Amino acid sequence: MEKQKGDSLSGLGEFGLIEHLSAQFENKHPETLKGIGDDAAVIASTNDHMVVTTDLLLEGIHFDLTYTPLRHLGYKAVVVNVSDVYAMNARPKQITVSIGMSSKISLAAIEELYEGIRLACERYNVDLVGGDTSTSLTGLTICITAIGTVKPGREVYRNGAKPNDLICVSGDLGAAYMGLQLLEREKRVFAGNPGVQPDLSGFDYLLERQLKPEARKEVVEFLDQIGVRPTSMIDISDGLSSEILHICKQSGTGCRLYEEKIPIDHQTSVLAEEMNINPVVAALNGGEDYELLFTISLADYEKFQGAKTNANIYAIGHIAPAEKGCCLITASGSEVELKAQGWANFG
Amino acid sequence: MEKQKGDSLSGLGEFGLIEHLSAQFENKHPETLKGIGDDAAVIASTNDHMVVTTDLLLEGIHFDLTYTPLRHLGYKAVVVNVSDVYAMNARPKQITVSIGMSSKISLAAIEELYEGIRLACERYNVDLVGGDTSTSLTGLTICITAIGTVKPGREVYRNGAKPNDLICVSGDLGAAYMGLQLLEREKRVFAGNPGVQPDLSGFDYLLERQLKPEARKEVVEFLDQIGVRPTSMIDISDGLSSEILHICKQSGTGCRLYEEKIPIDHQTSVLAEEMNINPVVAALNGGEDYELLFTISLADYEKFQGAKTNANIYAIGHIAPAEKGCCLITASGSEVELKAQGWANFG
Repeated sequence: MEKQKGDSLSGLGEFGLIEHLSAQFENKHPETLKGIGDDAAVIASTNDHMVVTTDLLLEGIHFDLTYTPLRHLGYKAVVVNVSDVYAMNARPKQITVSIGMSSKISLAAIEELYEGIRLACERYNVDLVGGDTSTSLTGLTICITAIGTVKPGREVYRNGAKPNDLICVSGDLGAAYMGLQLLEREKRVFAGNPGVQPDLSGFDYLLERQLKPEARKEVVEFLDQIGVRPTSMIDISDGLSSEILHICKQSGTGCRLYEEKIPIDHQTSVLAEEMNINPVVAALNGGEDYELLFTISLADYEKFQGAKTNANIYAIGHIAPAEKGCCLITASGSEVELKAQGWANFG
Repeated sequence: MEKQKGDSLSGLGEFGLIEHLSAQFENKHPETLKGIGDDAAVIASTNDHMVVTTDLLLEGIHFDLTYTPLRHLGYKAVVVNVSDVYAMNARPKQITVSIGMSSKISLAAIEELYEGIRLACERYNVDLVGGDTSTSLTGLTICITAIGTVKPGREVYRNGAKPNDLICVSGDLGAAYMGLQLLEREKRVFAGNPGVQPDLSGFDYLLERQLKPEARKEVVEFLDQIGVRPTSMIDISDGLSSEILHICKQSGTGCRLYEEKIPIDHQTSVLAEEMNINPVVAALNGGEDYELLFTISLADYEKFQGAKTNANIYAIGHIAPAEKGCCLITASGSEVELKAQGWANFG
């Protein structure tokens, strides 16, 4: 969960801070094709280029062990990294896993965590090639680095979107966020009355999306199969708004998203209504969906027609010239400016 | 500082735990030439192989901010990683840096940390290509992954030592440990009487070795220049004993180290005497020297004669058949079995 993340440092925010700090660094190696500023770095090689990405997960910030099974946590920690690899149109190959843990943690608990890591390595065809383990004075810390490969010319950055490109998204959005709301609600109920059993029934999908998400391997494979290279791509970790704004900012464009086109699962809608949350806001600002958001040229759109795939892909809008700004067209037809509210200002 | 690290989990120890957990994993990619169990992983590529290594540094475990300047900490965090790259006979090229930090930390403090990282990137010719930043509920967390390259056939593992190979070490040992003892002593004095100024004079070298170590770039360059490929190599992060035992275990050999040959700086000896510590024990078990320990075939030894280098390299013993065990030959000529005591049982 990234809700406590971000805007605390002099109002810079996470992305502003990274930009500020990395401004002092210069790349020295011509093989460094892409450094900071995308889902992963890209390093040139003779055959396949290599992509590298890393994520830090901290107890109390990114996960809550009161309701997160360690096996799921291990699985998810791998997924969030391979998702970044797929977002470069690359395939994950290796990971390193560094863990800091309390000396009081049991061996059985660590084994559970690694079993989740192992299952994700099987699912995504990834080798665990290294890491570091250390005791920690405080909570559990997990830092994973994923390495992948991509054929030169097939890599996809955030900065290649062009006006009139279609904006596509896989799967559905907002479910992971609603899963989190459910877990947090039941945690509060339980804290108030430990005799009450948590009521999570009917929302299995939301819980799975929050606790054990998957990365969109099949989307990248499908794009490859039909010969489409997206003009830009990013994975949705911070919410649709934040991600499309990254693409637009780096591509120097605007965009139009259509509220009615945003894919939202039935369970997401049901729980959102129950909890008095607008499901579209959950989709826009919720995050942790790990779906892929990408843009394709109009010429490529016909390749999608009739092609068979398990990947659910939806066209949700189009790229516009920069001067048109970034807007959501609501169901009633009005234009609302998109903002990367993230969790901090989530209403 | 690794003294609180290790043996807490069911007596497995850090290395035992890594072995135990990684036993469940299988590598799937033929490009994964070396996974867990060396200074870095090695991934095959058409031209240069790629090496990958990662290290997690946790406040209160690996560093103490009461006496560690953030700029030095940033520098050291890079050095410990590039040191692992050199230990594969490779050259570092890129790093990713993930930081978890309290929301109360000032921007100036983070800038200091990154200035240290930047200086190390300049010194070791490394590009910062990515990372992650997050707020942390507790202390400062730094996770760095370093990537390097090595020409196929030039990579050096821990497992290639053969009986009669010479055991060599660069620089001098035990100084970083004595620097830590000095800082801890002055911290205790200051805690007892905040009016007293810390007395660190005359031990600049020890402080530098502890707070701002360097990786042995020039050793790897020198070996290349004289055309010597070590039969095995490792960097000294946990102390000479622990490292030579890694080489012997993985190579299936024993060894003989000569106490009198172990290089120890004058300041190390002086402070050790003052603090009633055996300087050889500091060298054997102290750690954090980031010198390179390597073995070379006898045939290669003559290439060292007369060759000019800034790298101080000392022959300190030889590899023996496994059945001879791993021993230190003391100044008085007696044999003492080497043990990886690390910090935990340090007398």
